[in-house]
Amino acid sequence: MLARRIKHITLLDSTLRDGAQGEDISFSVNDKLRILEALDSFGLDFIEAGNPGSNPKDLEFFRLAEVRKPNHAQLCAFGATRRCNIAVEDDASVQSLLAANTPVVVLFGKSSLLHVTEILKTTREENLRMISETVSFFKEHGKKVIFDAEHFFDGYYASNDSAVYALKTLEAAQEAGADIVVLCDTNGGMLPYQVYEATAEAIAMLPADVPVGIHAHNDTGCAVANSIMALEAGATHVQGTFIGFGERCGNADLSAILPAVILKMGHHCNGELLRLSETVNVVAEIANVIVPNNKPYVGTSAFAHKAGMHADGVLKNSVSFEHIDPSKVGNKRNFLVSEVSGRSGVLKRVHGFAPNLAKDSPELTAILERLKALEHAGYQFEAADASFELMAKKVLGTYSPHFSVTFYKTMSEFPPGTDDLPSTAAIEIKVDGLTEIAAAKGRGPVHALDNALRKALVVFYPQLNDMHLVDFKVRVLDQKAATAATVRVLIESADAQTNWTTIGVSDDILEASFIALVDSLEYKLAKDG
Amino acid sequence: MLARRIKHITLLDSTLRDGAQGEDISFSVNDKLRILEALDSFGLDFIEAGNPGSNPKDLEFFRLAEVRKPNHAQLCAFGATRRCNIAVEDDASVQSLLAANTPVVVLFGKSSLLHVTEILKTTREENLRMISETVSFFKEHGKKVIFDAEHFFDGYYASNDSAVYALKTLEAAQEAGADIVVLCDTNGGMLPYQVYEATAEAIAMLPADVPVGIHAHNDTGCAVANSIMALEAGATHVQGTFIGFGERCGNADLSAILPAVILKMGHHCNGELLRLSETVNVVAEIANVIVPNNKPYVGTSAFAHKAGMHADGVLKNSVSFEHIDPSKVGNKRNFLVSEVSGRSGVLKRVHGFAPNLAKDSPELTAILERLKALEHAGYQFEAADASFELMAKKVLGTYSPHFSVTFYKTMSEFPPGTDDLPSTAAIEIKVDGLTEIAAAKGRGPVHALDNALRKALVVFYPQLNDMHLVDFKVRVLDQKAATAATVRVLIESADAQTNWTTIGVSDDILEASFIALVDSLEYKLAKDG
Repeated sequence: MLARRIKHITLLDSTLRDGAQGEDISFSVNDKLRILEALDSFGLDFIEAGNPGSNPKDLEFFRLAEVRKPNHAQLCAFGATRRCNIAVEDDASVQSLLAANTPVVVLFGKSSLLHVTEILKTTREENLRMISETVSFFKEHGKKVIFDAEHFFDGYYASNDSAVYALKTLEAAQEAGADIVVLCDTNGGMLPYQVYEATAEAIAMLPADVPVGIHAHNDTGCAVANSIMALEAGATHVQGTFIGFGERCGNADLSAILPAVILKMGHHCNGELLRLSETVNVVAEIANVIVPNNKPYVGTSAFAHKAGMHADGVLKNSVSFEHIDPSKVGNKRNFLVSEVSGRSGVLKRVHGFAPNLAKDSPELTAILERLKALEHAGYQFEAADASFELMAKKVLGTYSPHFSVTFYKTMSEFPPGTDDLPSTAAIEIKVDGLTEIAAAKGRGPVHALDNALRKALVVFYPQLNDMHLVDFKVRVLDQKAATAATVRVLIESADAQTNWTTIGVSDDILEASFIALVDSLEYKLAKDG
Repeated sequence: MLARRIKHITLLDSTLRDGAQGEDISFSVNDKLRILEALDSFGLDFIEAGNPGSNPKDLEFFRLAEVRKPNHAQLCAFGATRRCNIAVEDDASVQSLLAANTPVVVLFGKSSLLHVTEILKTTREENLRMISETVSFFKEHGKKVIFDAEHFFDGYYASNDSAVYALKTLEAAQEAGADIVVLCDTNGGMLPYQVYEATAEAIAMLPADVPVGIHAHNDTGCAVANSIMALEAGATHVQGTFIGFGERCGNADLSAILPAVILKMGHHCNGELLRLSETVNVVAEIANVIVPNNKPYVGTSAFAHKAGMHADGVLKNSVSFEHIDPSKVGNKRNFLVSEVSGRSGVLKRVHGFAPNLAKDSPELTAILERLKALEHAGYQFEAADASFELMAKKVLGTYSPHFSVTFYKTMSEFPPGTDDLPSTAAIEIKVDGLTEIAAAKGRGPVHALDNALRKALVVFYPQLNDMHLVDFKVRVLDQKAATAATVRVLIESADAQTNWTTIGVSDDILEASFIALVDSLEYKLAKDG
């Protein structure tokens, strides 16, 4: 195995432009400024933040961004080459792009013959002039120009004639002064070996000092791999979005590419890898999107060990069952608490709040036994970290509850009243000998009970106003019992500092939800001291 | 571009074994049988369904699966090579594996020197004997043997010595008669070019007629690409899970590999590609997991067009902005919704109870429109056959309800009374102008309401005593709305003749359950005339 040539790879994040095309994604101007700040502080090279020619709101953003200039990143505006048969100066989009006043302009132009003739309905020669004249225009205005060769790979693989033309568009951009030439898999249909081959040929054809980039979409599930294969073929620039947001199946996910480039390929790349998981969570939070547990490198399950054999192996030698050290990307090993992960797994999780507990202590045995009994009843503490902590502390006797519920009643009726809130709940709680009774309505009995409980509690604990529920999951365990089935409810909650998950199990869905809800509120109160 | 050699690729699905290791995944025996049936009817080659040596519950499953034998797929049981320093016959796990009585055995053995010396704590030679003797044992018992070389790639890339040893383990399995030798990236840390290189070397070393397979995990986000690169290097067998379920970041996703192999690489592969999206939805439904909208090939956004330019382009020429024709994988372009591919599919489903409906009839258009509106609200009729039929008949005007509910009230209280039935429901129904009021208690509000409704109905319809609910599922749709989230409830019911499934959607879990319950009872009454 030969030593590899170490290169410097630059990254361009398009969360604010291509990522905004994703379904369910819509950023306010303030969201965009906050994401810009998060990505800049992480240390990315280029941040592409909008398309002022097609979206006038983006111009407003660029005006604000000029004031809150990034410290590290170079801000990029995105737009098309000029239209057919007009002068560059007369193109309104080109003028908007210039007006964005960014140091970098990302210009996209057609690289596929099919698009030139059937979509643009122009000639091969005119398209080459459009590319070359628009690049020159921005170079003359002192910009750094990144040329995105749209549909390059589709063009390359359509026919020999089309492949020759696709390469010509790159040449046109480069000769006009483009600083980086980027090969785009706009439809996302490429497989890794195809990206490798076409990228290698493009690099061989261009002068050796021209940096070549890759822009991949995930329609084959290969966007990360395609980006990596382009680097392997000699590219030195990657475009994507930080969590993979984007149209259809998303863009290449920079949070999976960056650690591979640094930790596995050994290249240099700007970006504070230790803050990778944190930054992914910040961006997801602003975008109001849940980070999937199984997300490579940064998900909460990415270094989770469930099967007993694996958990044992990791404890013997972490390299044996982990592809990287999770702390290198700011993530952590997660022993899913479960009967199978056994004594050492549970000890590891208890250590955070009971550091002096020994592996052979009777207290640990007691926790394991309680765990086993609860798992038998349908509990599963793999994800429910907060309920696990409360349960263990109860066993250890280091926990005193902040409130008790003496009774509740819920009522639901059909048809609902005029306010369309068919459920009502009344609750009585006790805090330090004081009683509080509250009532509230809701969209269903669980919702009404949630509202009533909080209403009673904030009288004593106003800090509960800082927390909110972010996720609610219901799983029916013994489906055969039908409407009397045991259900498992998982509730994820958050405040400004952290997220936690609690669990409730019962053959009454209302009770299961209530147990998880009470744990969530107790955990928040215990946490804040 | 040279023509490619066309090969036959076999697929092994491990949803029921490796997939069951995924967080939040827990299958009942009935779930497993239903997934087996779905994957078999899709046409997969091998279905790996459990590890009888480590999980005694899996033996029970294999006994049931023997009765409900798959039509097409070969059933596989999974287990380890024998332990160190004992005879194969004396190994309890090996005996359990044999007792599973499947035509195929998937044996995993250590391929990485680190694991042999540090985890197994045995010698290089003994590990080779363990592999070779266990493979021979199962060959002598007439099994097809697939050998999974665990941590092959880690071993291959650890050192030259370790690489030589990793290749030797493959040789040991092959010489003992293994029918397929599978290279496993157990920790999921490989990048595509590494998989390509190591696979090519393994294939070059083994006799030309030995099929080589790939088993990839998704820890680098490259499991699909790694599988594809192994095929490109000459492998002809792929292991994965149908939707990518699996420990940590999941296994290689067969639903993304299969279309690439057939549509893009041009190889042969069993599996009814036209039913890909449908089968993904069925498996997800049974597993109680939401299919992400952006899932390659099968997600509802996989062929969605948000950007105006792209949408226009697709209308001009669909090849211009779509990497494949979505109908080839049973999916559809999003902005045309149920218009083209939907129409014939819906017609097919309507034919059972409205055989004379024409494809271009206004009635079918009306059903499609109602379907579209309900799907938008969160309904999904793929599994809910009975609710679909009732909905269509309502639109056609060929349905008259057997009862109406004029009101209900439910009450729940904590602490529960001495009978431990904390909920009560009262209901009023009308049948042919007659009113019946009934009340009942239950383990929760849904259970109480179910009991009260049946109590009122059997006065008029004693045949309802013949039916019972067999399955109850709850899925939270917009988890972020927490306790006010929209939920989808699916209820499966049965009588002596048949099973049927109904659906209800609401942001009140009680109401969603009630809608599904009413449909279930109505369907039974309509069915019996």
